[in-house]
Formats: sequence, C-alpha cells, structure tokens
Amino acid sequence: MTYQSINFNNKFGLFTEHWAPKVIAEMNDYQFKLAKVEGEFVFHSHANTDETFIVLDGCLRIDFEDGSVDLNAGEMFVVPKGVPHKPFAKSETQLLLIEPRGVVNTGEAEGGALTAKTDVWI
Amino acid sequence: MTYQSINFNNKFGLFTEHWAPKVIAEMNDYQFKLAKVEGEFVFHSHANTDETFIVLDGCLRIDFEDGSVDLNAGEMFVVPKGVPHKPFAKSETQLLLIEPRGVVNTGEAEGGALTAKTDVWI
Repeated sequence: MTYQSINFNNKFGLFTEHWAPKVIAEMNDYQFKLAKVEGEFVFHSHANTDETFIVLDGCLRIDFEDGSVDLNAGEMFVVPKGVPHKPFAKSETQLLLIEPRGVVNTGEAEGGALTAKTDVWI
Repeated sequence: MTYQSINFNNKFGLFTEHWAPKVIAEMNDYQFKLAKVEGEFVFHSHANTDETFIVLDGCLRIDFEDGSVDLNAGEMFVVPKGVPHKPFAKSETQLLLIEPRGVVNTGEAEGGALTAKTDVWI
C-alpha cells in the first residue's frame, strides 16, 4: 500500500489566486485549506464555528472590532465563533486554515467578489 | 483588547519530554497539541476519530500494517480512524497534532509508560 504525505509547498505551487482557499485534506468533518492572501479582506464572522489560522509564510494581521493580532510564520490564532474579523496582509502571505467542511470564507458578510467557492480541492 | 498569537517555537521551548503532547489551542471541540518525539512509539489506533500529524521540524515515519509514510517539515498526513499506526522518528522531531479533545495518545493500545496525560496545556 502506498501512503503519500501532503507537502504544503508543492500544493502552493498549484495555484496563484488570492483569497481562494483550496482544500488539501479532511479530518472527520473538518477541512485543511491552503490560501494565498494579499491586501485587505472584508469584516465577517462565522456564527457556528471557530476558525483556525496558521501562517506558513509571510505575515498576517487579523483586525477585530476592538483590536488586532499579528501572526508571523510559525504562529497560529483561533478566531472564536461569532467574532467579526478582517484578515490583512501587506504582502503575499501563505496560510493554512482549519474549519468545518462547508464554511464560506466571507461568513455572514456580503462578500461579493471575495466570496470563494467552497470545497475546491487541489 | 489584547490578542496574542501562539508561537510554535516559543511553546516548544517550554518542555523537553518526548511523546507527551501539550495543548496550545482549541477550536470548537478539537485541540492543537505540540509534541517532541524521538524513537519508536507503539502500534495503536483511535476507534472514533481521524488524527492529523503536521511535521514542523525533523522527519517522522508513520508505519501501518501494510506500508508507511515519511513526513518531512512542512508536510502533513491524516491517519483515518480505526487504522493501526506507529510513529517513529530517527532523531528529535517536532509535531503539531490535531484531534478531538480527550483523545489518548496510545489510543486502544496498552501504552504503559508511553501513555501521556490528556489535556495538559502549556
């Protein structure tokens, strides 16, 4: 039987779009997604779930209504469910996101062009 | 309001034991745990959940009954529920594990001295 690891850098080589998470693995009903982000996202929240951000390369700032957190490579943060947040990256940043299957990237917000399709695997 | 990122390297500086996962964050009813491993673990399985391994530093081999997978830094693998597996690291390796709260590291096996306490936070 052949088992294959999932290599983050190899997967990042397969796409270039920003703010369009790609699923690379599932654990029970949770998904692991890679995303490249740059610039400003929209304020949004997820009513039913926490959301995990792990920075693999670059720097991410997550703004809240009453503050912010800076994440460098090798750092993580869990945004609690229902908490409005807005990710921002000054230059291209590579993220690993973990959240339940089916979560929409713009949450409860009218994301418009920023709303990505869910369940896109690479 | 002050928000604080979780820095993997800083957390790894807080302990030295092998095969003793430390919780660093929770997302819903799942936990993120850091572990330092070296040498051979025991064959075990988790009847009710998948288990995610992410290698942050070093190399991990996971043996199965019919094969194995090698994970280097920047790689991940999800062991499906119920599948017997045995982690092995030739030299000290740093892992991020993700699994539901309360999972015992030796699963269904009689882990003896290798069975670690659950829910130990750093």
